[in-house]
Amino acid sequence: MSIKVSYKVKPQLLIFLSTISFSVFAQPEWREVANSVWKTTIGNQQSLTLLSAAGVVPKLDAIAGLDKVPFPLELEKMNFAVVDGKSYLRFPLERDEEIYGLGLQFQTHNQRGRILNLHVDHYGGKDNGRTHAPVPFYISSRGYGVLIDAPQYITVYAGTGVRVAADDPPIVQDRNTDTLWQPQPYSDAVEILVPAEGSDVYVFGGPTMLNVVQRYNLYNGGGYLPPKWGLGFTQRVPTLYTAQDILREVQEFADHDFPLDFIGLEPGWQSMAYPCTFEWDKGRFPDPEGLITTLAEKGVRANLWLNPYVSPTASLYDSIKPFSGTHTVWNGLVVDFTLPKPRDIFRHHFQKYQLDIGVSGFKIDEVDGFDNWLWPDVARFPSGYSAEVMRQCYGLLLQKMTADWFYQINKRTYGLVRASNAGASAMPYVIYNDYYSHKDFITALINSSFIGVLWTPEVRASGSAEEWLRRMQSVCFSPMAMLNAWSSGTKPWTFPEVANEVRDVARLRMQLLPYLYTAFARYQQEGIPPFRAMQLESGYASLRGLADAPSITYQYMMGESILVAPMFTGDSIRRVALPPGKWYDFYTGAYVGNGDWITVKPGLDKIPLFVKDGGIIPMIEARNQAPRPDEKLTLEVRKYGTAPGSYLLYDDDGVSFDYEKGLFSWSELTAKLEDGKWECSFNPGNKEAFNYSEKVNWKFFE
Amino acid sequence: MSIKVSYKVKPQLLIFLSTISFSVFAQPEWREVANSVWKTTIGNQQSLTLLSAAGVVPKLDAIAGLDKVPFPLELEKMNFAVVDGKSYLRFPLERDEEIYGLGLQFQTHNQRGRILNLHVDHYGGKDNGRTHAPVPFYISSRGYGVLIDAPQYITVYAGTGVRVAADDPPIVQDRNTDTLWQPQPYSDAVEILVPAEGSDVYVFGGPTMLNVVQRYNLYNGGGYLPPKWGLGFTQRVPTLYTAQDILREVQEFADHDFPLDFIGLEPGWQSMAYPCTFEWDKGRFPDPEGLITTLAEKGVRANLWLNPYVSPTASLYDSIKPFSGTHTVWNGLVVDFTLPKPRDIFRHHFQKYQLDIGVSGFKIDEVDGFDNWLWPDVARFPSGYSAEVMRQCYGLLLQKMTADWFYQINKRTYGLVRASNAGASAMPYVIYNDYYSHKDFITALINSSFIGVLWTPEVRASGSAEEWLRRMQSVCFSPMAMLNAWSSGTKPWTFPEVANEVRDVARLRMQLLPYLYTAFARYQQEGIPPFRAMQLESGYASLRGLADAPSITYQYMMGESILVAPMFTGDSIRRVALPPGKWYDFYTGAYVGNGDWITVKPGLDKIPLFVKDGGIIPMIEARNQAPRPDEKLTLEVRKYGTAPGSYLLYDDDGVSFDYEKGLFSWSELTAKLEDGKWECSFNPGNKEAFNYSEKVNWKFFE
Repeated sequence: MSIKVSYKVKPQLLIFLSTISFSVFAQPEWREVANSVWKTTIGNQQSLTLLSAAGVVPKLDAIAGLDKVPFPLELEKMNFAVVDGKSYLRFPLERDEEIYGLGLQFQTHNQRGRILNLHVDHYGGKDNGRTHAPVPFYISSRGYGVLIDAPQYITVYAGTGVRVAADDPPIVQDRNTDTLWQPQPYSDAVEILVPAEGSDVYVFGGPTMLNVVQRYNLYNGGGYLPPKWGLGFTQRVPTLYTAQDILREVQEFADHDFPLDFIGLEPGWQSMAYPCTFEWDKGRFPDPEGLITTLAEKGVRANLWLNPYVSPTASLYDSIKPFSGTHTVWNGLVVDFTLPKPRDIFRHHFQKYQLDIGVSGFKIDEVDGFDNWLWPDVARFPSGYSAEVMRQCYGLLLQKMTADWFYQINKRTYGLVRASNAGASAMPYVIYNDYYSHKDFITALINSSFIGVLWTPEVRASGSAEEWLRRMQSVCFSPMAMLNAWSSGTKPWTFPEVANEVRDVARLRMQLLPYLYTAFARYQQEGIPPFRAMQLESGYASLRGLADAPSITYQYMMGESILVAPMFTGDSIRRVALPPGKWYDFYTGAYVGNGDWITVKPGLDKIPLFVKDGGIIPMIEARNQAPRPDEKLTLEVRKYGTAPGSYLLYDDDGVSFDYEKGLFSWSELTAKLEDGKWECSFNPGNKEAFNYSEKVNWKFFE
Repeated sequence: MSIKVSYKVKPQLLIFLSTISFSVFAQPEWREVANSVWKTTIGNQQSLTLLSAAGVVPKLDAIAGLDKVPFPLELEKMNFAVVDGKSYLRFPLERDEEIYGLGLQFQTHNQRGRILNLHVDHYGGKDNGRTHAPVPFYISSRGYGVLIDAPQYITVYAGTGVRVAADDPPIVQDRNTDTLWQPQPYSDAVEILVPAEGSDVYVFGGPTMLNVVQRYNLYNGGGYLPPKWGLGFTQRVPTLYTAQDILREVQEFADHDFPLDFIGLEPGWQSMAYPCTFEWDKGRFPDPEGLITTLAEKGVRANLWLNPYVSPTASLYDSIKPFSGTHTVWNGLVVDFTLPKPRDIFRHHFQKYQLDIGVSGFKIDEVDGFDNWLWPDVARFPSGYSAEVMRQCYGLLLQKMTADWFYQINKRTYGLVRASNAGASAMPYVIYNDYYSHKDFITALINSSFIGVLWTPEVRASGSAEEWLRRMQSVCFSPMAMLNAWSSGTKPWTFPEVANEVRDVARLRMQLLPYLYTAFARYQQEGIPPFRAMQLESGYASLRGLADAPSITYQYMMGESILVAPMFTGDSIRRVALPPGKWYDFYTGAYVGNGDWITVKPGLDKIPLFVKDGGIIPMIEARNQAPRPDEKLTLEVRKYGTAPGSYLLYDDDGVSFDYEKGLFSWSELTAKLEDGKWECSFNPGNKEAFNYSEKVNWKFFE
């Protein structure tokens, strides 16, 4: 299995190396594959990579519009070798450098000093790399990013290993007597082991961390623009609910004047689940098409739960069996979706029984872990890809396949998935799990912005009215406002003492839809995450230097200028770190601070929201469902602070991919003070794809 | 990297397989390498295996003395393949089968239904395969064993994976409606992934589980026979203790009339630690030889702590550097001990500065984990062996190297080590760790008997007099009676309310030395673990069937006929499972039961001990140090129950390897009732190697 031998060793040691093959790539060729995005291939890369599993199509034009920067790393401080079938990669670190990304972590942001085994799995309570989206991509605080595009269980030593020949070696101490002795001496490198004889490696330039993230997302095809209804409120119903139960549930939402855009059906819509048939249960759903049509008449879409494991009782079992792995999951076949044929079989089935009758999306469960339930690493698949590769890519493969179904009928979808990986930026899916720590959910939401995925801090049961409200507030400021409390039966109005406040925050989200939809459009077109870590904001780094700054801050940006600082049960006050510049309270317009930590006491009814000086927030009237293509709405525009502001508002039909044909609009809103008076302008864009009246109601918070 | 391609695939799928190589070994050749021990080699095995790292020399003659059995597994239900550089192994399981072993587990015995990644590491609180001795060997309750002799991070699916083509498939259930739905369907196989393109595999015949363990231990060279002093009491002293402090500590033990055979010096004996110099600190130890000599005059041996990482200030740093890995541990070099040259350098150093002045043993620390501190998996070593292989073998390599030093000077040693693996049966080392759960320590002690290692439930700090006593009772019924409380400064007499009881149990251990030493001799000569799981006792399986039988029983056998049932803090009663046959209380001789669960209330001063009907227990008078070669002692022999008994007592000089030249003795003790009167006999063996007077004091407990 020799590749090539070019490593210098002392002659007397050569004898021990006879059975080992290795190659060192002292000068790998870095090809600029997009503006300030470089790629190299180490060793022999498998044909399937994470990006190819995701089917990414880079947005080269958009990347070209970003600033050009030089290659950000010193070539002589990097090292790549393939030894005995494994790839060894090294990248330098400077003393002050921080490392973000490396998967959907729930308890930490900066990964420097950690060892991560990036492995698709449920999140088990530790930030060790086993998680729903173990994306092998990191962003340095020095403004560059590194992606290892390999579909294996990659181990990352993010500044832990110390080489004998370190460029910047630690000092040697005596533990016997030196009280300053450190168990983990200083490390000057990120070292990575890819258990495969090759890997694609990308370096993304900045200069800012946000630019790195933009290039990463754009290279993956840009972020996904959900249908407008996807940004409305969603509720999931108990597994054995019948069609009648579902219609009653929808009516209940209407009776309570509570937002509802789509409803999720859990496993029981199928004739068998765990493993699945993907066929409607004839008892509970005698007329699926009728149900979906009735729901649509009420403005409500349907999302169907599934796990991809095929029941022996499923009609497609026999046809899919030759394209499945050696092992079952809950007795169901594990289909090899790297092959085109089984993808065709699935598409035909789902087209006929789900898409053609109007189903709007899916919740793809159980593609992450836990190990005891999923296929073992000894499973084998007809494509020849290993069980490990299949595990790392399965979430991507399912997302891509199902996304394509909807793309082919020119209908946007927006669903849920439990496993993802690198390359997922353009996927119409939001990640979720069962972990349910409110604080850690917010940390995950923040971290999702480093790695091109979306995350929802979904609401299930709550132990108190306060918790219920606090969680509902958070989820309304996330990529998917989802209630998933079917198991406990909790409804938005279950706690009467906070029912109004819960509705208020859900309706505030609906009011913010123009702003939120625009944030997603910028995700798609510019790669800027709609919900993002403070680390991606300019000037935020200066706050980290403060002596008492916590490492986890539970605050994030939504869209261009709103800072969200969720409250947690039991807290009546909280601290917020405001980046440099003046900031204003979203609700009152009061000035709150500038480039410092502040303490706020928001009251139970409010989730703290702050707006940058000059911020313009386009809103609409409160409503229960996202705007339809045929509606024309009046904008209510809030303008914060005294600085002049300008804002580009996105719009399109909200449901199709016609924007790809140019059917979208960017409209400009500006406001500036002239002689103590606000001078405002509104320049609507492409009127064929613009659903607001030209009269705008401005409101100034200064 | 193709090996050979012989797997049948459908032609239309072949196109996807072009980059993958694999071999299937439908009929591997099983060679009988010892009586009812079979070996095969799958694919290309590396030259270094666990057994070769341990340098095992099988005791073929002793194995030949066991019953011959047929190959215990159905060939057609096994499957072996090498695919793309990894080995896939499958072994069948029957419905009622239980699986023991697979590493030093702390919370479980039966591993069926678990997934284990066998990885040398500290024990982190979960039985997931990461542990101090992740031995890839399992014993089936059906009376056979399987060893995967591969030095990689092996993943074992011990009855979890379900194949589409299962021999014994599970039933398919619908989770929507079937309340019997199981998240883990029935699995009929152990499946193993070895991340290497080959592996040695052994199958050990029974017919009993104990026979399997015997074959395994004997194949590894038999168990280790410690020097007699190694079975006495040991204490470790604070890291910055000087020579004078140590002598004062020894005097304190004498003043308290408390057993002490060897004393352990922690890192501070060295001029620098973490990393280490392996050189005496001239300030604290101006005359090391004088100290060791003075200690020897008091009958006390010295054991020295070390971790193997070489400090830049060590005299052997420059000479060892070319033979070290690319990465440091605490700034110390990680020596490649697979190479002869650095072993020579170490031997010369330790010979001169430690062995020649009389040091009796070592405590080899920090060779297990944790990952952040040890060398990373991207480290590379001059031998060409991977960091992974080095991690799996390092404890074995250190044990073997240091054991050889003592063997070469014909002096037995007995020390401590934190990492081991398959092949360690003959090593003079006991495993320990920092985990410190009393109950889990007992579970580990029990599990150690399945995998050819020794374990000590060492005593450190205790929160109460009760805990102190209960822990001291347990450790006195273990392979090493060690107090390691230097950090807290607790002494055996620190809790005055239990000081007498603590001394009593330590002295009871000393009284039992003839019995214990014989148990170790049988470990060496017959492979029978001196401390062993109840599962290895005949008839015990019948108790498992009882409806309320717990899976973890915290009881074990010591030597031929003593059942030990430790008590834990807070408990005044406990249940004990007695295998079929009559059992008697060790202290009173009272009959307690037969083949059933009993409940005992032993009082704080006693650790429950039970003796089989017919059991003969040779003891000596209480004393504080193990017998010296020049002493002649009088045996006090206890005989339990009414059944006739016979017992073979082992003896030799207790310190050297002269037993290999035949300088050892087996003496026979027999007792039977003749007409209501006990008829006893004592036939001393080889008198050149026998240190007891021929007059024996019998005591009958019936």
